[in-house]
Amino acid sequence: MNKNYSALTLEELPKRLSQISAITDQIGTNFSEWNVTEVGDGNLNLVFIVIGSKGKIVIKQALPYVRVVGDSWPLTLERAYFEYNALIRQEDRDPGIVPSVFHFDREQGLIAMECLDSHKILRGKLIAGEQVENLGDVIGKHCARLAFKGSDLFMDTKDKKHDVSLFQKNLELMSITENLVFTDPYFDAKMNNNTKGLDPIIKIIRDDVTMKSRAQLMLLKFTSNTETMCHGDLHSGSIMCTDTDTKVIDPEFAFYGPMGFDLGMNIANYLMAFFSQPAHRQNSTEIDSFQNWILKVIEETIQAFIDEFSNLWHNNRQGILFPKCLFEDQDQSSQFALNSVIKNIWSDAVSVCGIEMHRRCLSLAHNADFEQIEDLSFRAKLEARNLLMGRELILNSDKIKDASDLTSLAIKFNERNIL
Amino acid sequence: MNKNYSALTLEELPKRLSQISAITDQIGTNFSEWNVTEVGDGNLNLVFIVIGSKGKIVIKQALPYVRVVGDSWPLTLERAYFEYNALIRQEDRDPGIVPSVFHFDREQGLIAMECLDSHKILRGKLIAGEQVENLGDVIGKHCARLAFKGSDLFMDTKDKKHDVSLFQKNLELMSITENLVFTDPYFDAKMNNNTKGLDPIIKIIRDDVTMKSRAQLMLLKFTSNTETMCHGDLHSGSIMCTDTDTKVIDPEFAFYGPMGFDLGMNIANYLMAFFSQPAHRQNSTEIDSFQNWILKVIEETIQAFIDEFSNLWHNNRQGILFPKCLFEDQDQSSQFALNSVIKNIWSDAVSVCGIEMHRRCLSLAHNADFEQIEDLSFRAKLEARNLLMGRELILNSDKIKDASDLTSLAIKFNERNIL
Repeated sequence: MNKNYSALTLEELPKRLSQISAITDQIGTNFSEWNVTEVGDGNLNLVFIVIGSKGKIVIKQALPYVRVVGDSWPLTLERAYFEYNALIRQEDRDPGIVPSVFHFDREQGLIAMECLDSHKILRGKLIAGEQVENLGDVIGKHCARLAFKGSDLFMDTKDKKHDVSLFQKNLELMSITENLVFTDPYFDAKMNNNTKGLDPIIKIIRDDVTMKSRAQLMLLKFTSNTETMCHGDLHSGSIMCTDTDTKVIDPEFAFYGPMGFDLGMNIANYLMAFFSQPAHRQNSTEIDSFQNWILKVIEETIQAFIDEFSNLWHNNRQGILFPKCLFEDQDQSSQFALNSVIKNIWSDAVSVCGIEMHRRCLSLAHNADFEQIEDLSFRAKLEARNLLMGRELILNSDKIKDASDLTSLAIKFNERNIL
Repeated sequence: MNKNYSALTLEELPKRLSQISAITDQIGTNFSEWNVTEVGDGNLNLVFIVIGSKGKIVIKQALPYVRVVGDSWPLTLERAYFEYNALIRQEDRDPGIVPSVFHFDREQGLIAMECLDSHKILRGKLIAGEQVENLGDVIGKHCARLAFKGSDLFMDTKDKKHDVSLFQKNLELMSITENLVFTDPYFDAKMNNNTKGLDPIIKIIRDDVTMKSRAQLMLLKFTSNTETMCHGDLHSGSIMCTDTDTKVIDPEFAFYGPMGFDLGMNIANYLMAFFSQPAHRQNSTEIDSFQNWILKVIEETIQAFIDEFSNLWHNNRQGILFPKCLFEDQDQSSQFALNSVIKNIWSDAVSVCGIEMHRRCLSLAHNADFEQIEDLSFRAKLEARNLLMGRELILNSDKIKDASDLTSLAIKFNERNIL
């Protein structure tokens, strides 16, 4: 750890940041009157909202350990450096999708950024049954833009290789995903926990050698297929929305990986919201209505991804991959190639989706969609549907051909009484 | 280019290297009596053999441009740094397979290494009809050891990510492969050349959108699937043999890529030796006999790869991928996973094989197997067999199931009179 690093406190924050003009430009210089609150509810960092005479700002600071576990699990401050690097690339590739970044201090692991105070974490809205206009469209397009514009389809390959080289150093965060997401769910790992009553389901999953092998083949792709810069953690806790606007936050897990990774993790979290609805809505009409909306969001996300990726393919393909000199310039279509690339992205997304559905119920970091269900036997019943659908996705990631196949499966598993 | 760099000359070499004890330890200190010859016949570098009173040594020095083209094509001296890094890893992963390295000077792009003076370049031996004992076994095992031990199946993933980060910087050499191997063959690229008479075959290849798409899907894997450290250029000009001993040289194209890359490129060069034999042997008995031996080498290479990879899988699997806690420790077999991994490696190898067979007849750097055939119409006829088999391999890389499928195809194409 850097010897000059010091975690911010509510008391010290104003004085320590008062000389940074990028910050005082936003909230004013009268730092003795700044109002500071700590709002971090994630697993890793300190997050402050600072209100001054001119406005508000968010200060996010990395802690030298995993906040949710404590200082027994040290974690590099450098993750803030990768988050910063990811944020500026996201902004470049999809302007307006992330909060504006005003200041970055690598030594302190500190990022000062736009305060999204009318936005709420999407996961909370999904639990509360609040719809968001255009959610699928915005996130589907965003995933496509990140996937395409960070790859050799678009970037100069020298720049892309520099970026791969850089992000390989975000290895501590990659390790968390490698262990907690891809491996821990499938054996009796130390940090695992699960809802009581799930043992028969867990046995089915851990006895399924074919499925575990396929999950590990996806881990091979996670560690080795440096196709593009992914957000790396695009669950519904990394998306903030008003009723009509959507932003993406927290890309500290950014890494070079499969083009379908973000899409798959995103859909998984919608599916978990879907399966958990019976515990959060008042009656079956409400359940049906909100579940149908979630399935519509999933279908719109996937359609927006395909449309935007295809649009970029036809109009912005300027990298070394599938160059026009081999196709259009020879009066030949590149549609077969595009379809093949999208098919591979989709198959990876389905596989990642299934794995994310598993790890959120079996590994360390569960999600509120299920965790907030107090009736444990009801929770287990809903989680069982989710877990068995996840298994189906991993087993058949190359046979589930489109969004409609996926949502049909969700409807089928939602009707099953497993536990 | 480094300002202190200066290319060695026959005259200056003894004086310039006389103070390096790692060199004088090998060949003696009486530098005024050293006998120096320049033997570089590759495309890129200076290669000197220096003979002193105590022994011989090879001095390989990078030039700041592509030797075969001239100073109009500048090329980084840093490739010697990657070659050195690859050599020490090859030695570590498969002791004895590469010449011993005695000294490395990054500033001068210079490597001093063991002189293999009883070894000859394999390509020349194949053209001359000279068999090498155990060739398939040695190279098949070597490819398996490199593939396995540079991957997340074996390495600590932190070390592996550091290595990926390092080798991404060998981008100028990767670019050569990306362009000359994967793309130039499939359009009318500036530096291309081909034997007169091949136009109808080239038209078949360039009109085949499915095949070109599949070749580019393999390029996506080349640029992005950082599964392991590959030699990167394992053709028969990078292998030196006596009648019974085999060494691998020249890993300056080393990169992190698909585990099947080296195997595929190696087999392609055997297949080109196979197809060219009718022009190099005296009669059909000699042709049949040497062609059969080449096919046997191909089959032995593939079998040795599979056997050694499987052996390492069962006995040395210590990385994050397919950990024993998910399989053996749960009393479950990891054989399905191993078979899946080998299937993917094999499919990539077949695809790379077909592409290498194309580029050696259509792009810039041809090989002597065909180039030494003076009768151009005969050369074109043999190259046509090679080119059409290459197409078949790219189109069916996931359907050709094993070595025997591959060698049967070679026999089939060898009997076709195409031009």
